Amino acid sequence: MSIFLELIPVSEAEEILRKIAPSMEEEAVPLQDAYDRVLSRSATAEEDIPGFTRTVVDGYAIRAADTIGAGEAMPAMLTITGRVGMGEGDAGHVAPGECRYVPTGAVIPDGADAAAMIEYAEESGNEVLVYRAVASGENLTLRGDDFQKNDLVFPAGRRLSSRDLGVMGALGITTVPVRRKPVIGIISTGNELISPDKTPGPGEIRDVNTYLCRGYAQTRGLIPRIYGIIPDERDPLEEAIRQAVAECDLVCISGGSSKGERDMCAAILADLGTVHAHGISLAPGKPTIIGTIDDVPVMGLPGHPASAYVVLVALCDVLIAAMTGSEVTRITVPARCASPIPSARGREDYIRVRLEGRDAYPLFGKSGLTNTLIESSGLLRIPDGREGYEKGAEVEVILW
Amino acid sequence: MSIFLELIPVSEAEEILRKIAPSMEEEAVPLQDAYDRVLSRSATAEEDIPGFTRTVVDGYAIRAADTIGAGEAMPAMLTITGRVGMGEGDAGHVAPGECRYVPTGAVIPDGADAAAMIEYAEESGNEVLVYRAVASGENLTLRGDDFQKNDLVFPAGRRLSSRDLGVMGALGITTVPVRRKPVIGIISTGNELISPDKTPGPGEIRDVNTYLCRGYAQTRGLIPRIYGIIPDERDPLEEAIRQAVAECDLVCISGGSSKGERDMCAAILADLGTVHAHGISLAPGKPTIIGTIDDVPVMGLPGHPASAYVVLVALCDVLIAAMTGSEVTRITVPARCASPIPSARGREDYIRVRLEGRDAYPLFGKSGLTNTLIESSGLLRIPDGREGYEKGAEVEVILW
Repeated sequence: MSIFLELIPVSEAEEILRKIAPSMEEEAVPLQDAYDRVLSRSATAEEDIPGFTRTVVDGYAIRAADTIGAGEAMPAMLTITGRVGMGEGDAGHVAPGECRYVPTGAVIPDGADAAAMIEYAEESGNEVLVYRAVASGENLTLRGDDFQKNDLVFPAGRRLSSRDLGVMGALGITTVPVRRKPVIGIISTGNELISPDKTPGPGEIRDVNTYLCRGYAQTRGLIPRIYGIIPDERDPLEEAIRQAVAECDLVCISGGSSKGERDMCAAILADLGTVHAHGISLAPGKPTIIGTIDDVPVMGLPGHPASAYVVLVALCDVLIAAMTGSEVTRITVPARCASPIPSARGREDYIRVRLEGRDAYPLFGKSGLTNTLIESSGLLRIPDGREGYEKGAEVEVILW
Repeated sequence: MSIFLELIPVSEAEEILRKIAPSMEEEAVPLQDAYDRVLSRSATAEEDIPGFTRTVVDGYAIRAADTIGAGEAMPAMLTITGRVGMGEGDAGHVAPGECRYVPTGAVIPDGADAAAMIEYAEESGNEVLVYRAVASGENLTLRGDDFQKNDLVFPAGRRLSSRDLGVMGALGITTVPVRRKPVIGIISTGNELISPDKTPGPGEIRDVNTYLCRGYAQTRGLIPRIYGIIPDERDPLEEAIRQAVAECDLVCISGGSSKGERDMCAAILADLGTVHAHGISLAPGKPTIIGTIDDVPVMGLPGHPASAYVVLVALCDVLIAAMTGSEVTRITVPARCASPIPSARGREDYIRVRLEGRDAYPLFGKSGLTNTLIESSGLLRIPDGREGYEKGAEVEVILW
């Protein structure tokens, strides 16, 4: 094979990833376990929520017309005919000149069309003085104000937030249809690698990528399955790949940063399945391999940890979104380039940047280093049509 | 008790929370379980990382001086004396006029001070032609370039990200000292509440806050313990609070949005322990209660789900950060007010806003509704010294 890779644009790599992504089946989970899961069907309101008109203040259910012209000097005087308890379905009736006490959240009686706040009212015997005019509808939540029957509340593909769980509860959805969590097989290759619990001898370095990929899996709602450190030899690597493909929904092999290793990984993929891409116009991440074996996507990531993580964010995120029928969820923030950032046209660059206020400082660490992974706030993407950004340019930063 | 609460400023509430926060003990977890945990001690590098000088390219370890003046027309000609394998500790020696093949990541032999990329070299028999001048140090990662021995890499209190896990691996820290996860007791009160798996009858609504608080717990690395829906009656509520205080590190009681309920909750807290605050200059969230029972912080949250969630973010986050010795972790993004947002001076407002590009649109939903929780992108905080923001004002939005 040539030492020069045949590079494809990032957009083409994304298209390949969307095409090879196996769709995760649906499963039902209890609402309490649905945090951060991806909805497999849309969720709609089965009835009006709330199901009745409620007061949002402590006070008196009244007819607004009875308070016209009321003020400090000339309060409206109403006769109190009862008190509504929380959760009481039958709140009774309010006739002209009458009112009923209602605690926050209680049903508004028939006939009443507003609530007067307790802070602007005074109860004395059977009478309530209301010191402010109240408008019709004031201080009420109307039936269906939150959601109306048949409202689409969540589209399929939504990744459920903590707040979504509460709203799911409001909808009465306690068993949630979600996509199965993809199982990601994680393989680290390299004869120089040792387990992090060992002390490196001469020429050895600790395996960073297994924990990095495992951490990535945890942030993305994947189930990591670890295959350990595999030496750069054909047989053990092929065996590890075969096993991972049989047990996982996608496989990430990191390492193989040298030409010989890359070629071996690509050759195994070609023998066992198909290589769709070997080399992407992406920096860092150029030597990335995309393949499939038995319809299982296999990605060959660069060996350098920072490069591997960029590829996970730039490309693997696209694959996982397609597998779960969701959108790539990135938090981006607007920022200003604190110094010029050059880039080569025809290549998509992901520059690690540190945000200080609105200023994005590029961290041009050597690619073998891991310190930029923890010193950076996120990635500044330079599309392939640009030659970089000038100092002061308005950009978007993808938060890690 | 008065219907008017005695309000304290948010800053004072934060001070109280930091004062009453019990410190979580230290525990050791395997690195693979350390994602999103809070470091209890700082982590330092115990040796130089990497421990040797490596090449970051495939190519030839050379003496840079041997390539002075080299170019396409007149390549430097070097004698190849060997090949360094990945993980080989003894890379040999390069004398003037010599070179050795090095794959990416391999040890640089003694005597060599740079690597020439394979793309700009040609091997032929025992000779290697180098078509570009190479500077001393070029294409190398030096020993200690990533971290030097005794470097402080992570301070105590850091919440570990996925990338941090990889770097922990590089440091050889496979057992991680972290703060114990706080156990949060979650109590929902209200006679109108029913379990989300039931269909509401007249006057009833489904309990949203249990799932909301549980979701919050999951986003903040807490262990939720659910005490269910407790009726607004003194005995069962007191019993639930006693049990939760005995079993948890902090307790959140939501509901009690009416005066009577609030008073009961505060009275129980006063009887069993201490009420530090009842009423905070915060909107939404004014009726929030802060107490302690047997040194366990107990927070009384508003019953309205959106208000309850704002209080969790605005105040409970401060408590949890203090309990785990970490910083409040908020992602804020700069934005522009899309419409004027008024506020009362002397009160801190948290306005739910929807971000569209850089524009923040306030969602002024009635406080009893939950739909703003899912339609908003986050919160716009208006400090108590301000009377609001004009349209177009530059603001910061706290992402949910």
